[in-house]
Amino acid sequence: MNLHDTPRYPRGFSGTAAHVGIKKEGYDLTLMVSTVPAAAAAVFTQNQVPGAPIVVGREIIAGGRLRGIVVNSRVANVGRGQEGLDRARRMGEAAAAEIGCDPGEVLMSSTGIIGAPLPIEKIEAGLVGMTERLESDPMIAARGIMTTDTHPKALSTTVGDATLTIVAKGSGMIAPNMATMLCYVMTDAEFTAEELDGMLRTSVDRTLNMLSVDSDTSTSDTCVIWANGLAGAVEKADFAATLDALLETMTEILARDGEGATRVLRVSIRRAEDEAAARALAKSIVDSPLIKTMVHGGDPNVGRILMAVGKCREARVLPGRIDAWVGDDQVVASGTPTDFDPQMVRERFGGSTVDITVDLGLGDGSARAWGCDLSEGYVEENGAYVST
Amino acid sequence: MNLHDTPRYPRGFSGTAAHVGIKKEGYDLTLMVSTVPAAAAAVFTQNQVPGAPIVVGREIIAGGRLRGIVVNSRVANVGRGQEGLDRARRMGEAAAAEIGCDPGEVLMSSTGIIGAPLPIEKIEAGLVGMTERLESDPMIAARGIMTTDTHPKALSTTVGDATLTIVAKGSGMIAPNMATMLCYVMTDAEFTAEELDGMLRTSVDRTLNMLSVDSDTSTSDTCVIWANGLAGAVEKADFAATLDALLETMTEILARDGEGATRVLRVSIRRAEDEAAARALAKSIVDSPLIKTMVHGGDPNVGRILMAVGKCREARVLPGRIDAWVGDDQVVASGTPTDFDPQMVRERFGGSTVDITVDLGLGDGSARAWGCDLSEGYVEENGAYVST
Repeated sequence: MNLHDTPRYPRGFSGTAAHVGIKKEGYDLTLMVSTVPAAAAAVFTQNQVPGAPIVVGREIIAGGRLRGIVVNSRVANVGRGQEGLDRARRMGEAAAAEIGCDPGEVLMSSTGIIGAPLPIEKIEAGLVGMTERLESDPMIAARGIMTTDTHPKALSTTVGDATLTIVAKGSGMIAPNMATMLCYVMTDAEFTAEELDGMLRTSVDRTLNMLSVDSDTSTSDTCVIWANGLAGAVEKADFAATLDALLETMTEILARDGEGATRVLRVSIRRAEDEAAARALAKSIVDSPLIKTMVHGGDPNVGRILMAVGKCREARVLPGRIDAWVGDDQVVASGTPTDFDPQMVRERFGGSTVDITVDLGLGDGSARAWGCDLSEGYVEENGAYVST
Repeated sequence: MNLHDTPRYPRGFSGTAAHVGIKKEGYDLTLMVSTVPAAAAAVFTQNQVPGAPIVVGREIIAGGRLRGIVVNSRVANVGRGQEGLDRARRMGEAAAAEIGCDPGEVLMSSTGIIGAPLPIEKIEAGLVGMTERLESDPMIAARGIMTTDTHPKALSTTVGDATLTIVAKGSGMIAPNMATMLCYVMTDAEFTAEELDGMLRTSVDRTLNMLSVDSDTSTSDTCVIWANGLAGAVEKADFAATLDALLETMTEILARDGEGATRVLRVSIRRAEDEAAARALAKSIVDSPLIKTMVHGGDPNVGRILMAVGKCREARVLPGRIDAWVGDDQVVASGTPTDFDPQMVRERFGGSTVDITVDLGLGDGSARAWGCDLSEGYVEENGAYVST
């Protein structure tokens, strides 16, 4: 997969963002549009207190067809009962009126503070005329959906005659099972909603669902794929592989921009009893505060890897079979720390990506999880979110 | 339950601590002794990579009888294979020789860095003559077992004619399921090992196992109860209630001394579907980094409570039935934030104990969990543990 140097939309897609007064300053409303109806599929948060846009969004995605996506930032429209559902619908209807399509063809997302009322009048007023300002640069939409992200996130690549583009956000409250992550995948390749659904679930399971910044699962996570078919048919296997690679790259970009993160933590599990065990263990390690602070502080306290392996109840472990590496250097052999060079480990923990690999010596299950270190910055940022 | 102003040992118990060169300075070796054999029971870590003292300790506790407990700090004797098991046994044998009892009557614990070799020669040499320096103040033993604790932890109370005393430590790597917590409960009441086992498990399940500083489960957790019978029989129900209350008080003391903690977080769940759901949900909230940082920062971002309730997969939730309180003030009613006074919430978050209560409106399951806020201090402390 070759990423485009400058991300671009697939044929027929465009987007724009505006400041409508929900945030104090900066873009807070985003609209993405396809000139023709696109087949669509999505996965949503598994949080049991989902935002209103998730509840309404599930109905809309069941239709399998999208012309537009509208997103506001700063207020998540969660915990507002019937009022929230009504306002989510009004948001979609206002965007549909602006696009000139059926309200069943517009998905809405909201991200930001939980529990505050959605300023729907500002959104309705702000949407008027937005389709006259649609742009060809996906970075504008990416900037519009940001909350605590430090930079906008968009990627694109070519597969066959088609383009595959991701516009995403995510920084805090990111955990396995899709936590405040918004991820919009667009393509001009031609697929049915059912095909898209299968490919999306397979890829998300291996990529976004293996990302954890802080183990907190958002109420608003959404990953959508929509394909308008303007580039015609593309070989499905090629497309699936490219989607997978592009989502993996975006996963790593999201991890790197984790709140307060100074480096990416990538944990690979080999030879677990089965894949489910490998996945659970990879997540357990990537979520361990003592692993995350060890990586942050560059402290070669690798015994903590044994603790983090052992604490996971979902993966069987035989202590005497555990091998572990930091980068290419083995730090645990048969359950006991090796005579590794502490300075080497310190240096590896200082890199921009820290790889920890654990081999359980039990079966053929493998998995990889992405996360980041835990820094003072995370604490500062999350101790004063509402107030800033 | 009335706590003694100055904690004291039950009849026949005493303890001492020494510096034998494992730490750079301060006590690193502790011995507690009963003049007569005591019936004993214990619960140990559920980590699958347990320390050698846990593996050997399970054998010893199976005997149901103790004369002594020996504890070293700074090195945990975990991840050392056969060498670790051999050294744990040597540690117990050296203590037994010093006490003049059977090695099967001495339990050993080690706490500190995982993966480093136990300096057994220093321990063996240090034990010689320790029984000549036994003291009646349990604070000395409490000081001897500290690692990152900021103060020694001992409590005692009276039940019938008997005394009940706890000497404990625990600060980081504390999670549900007993993470680096060492807790030694002593009494001169008369009970069988089987009776002690039942009472201990019931109380620990409700108290220490509901404590989480950072969700990381230690490889070395141990809670022992030993009863030497010198005060004769005590009404079992009274004793069980007192044990429960004393362990709850110690749980709160441990939470307050969580690494970097500036306040205790106490989460109560009411009307969950059943007790298992209530317990899982209480732990999920007390472990949520976004709840912990909110409490630390005094930020009235109470919508996060809805996120933390919804993210727990083990407890069924109906969003419209959720009520929540901070202290006595209701902040969520029927799943929606109330019109609470943000300044009031800020003040409550500034208290030394922060109470969050959630009512699910579903059944009769209730539970309480204890934790602490997440501060910059936790990150600093755990980024440089080996090196300090």
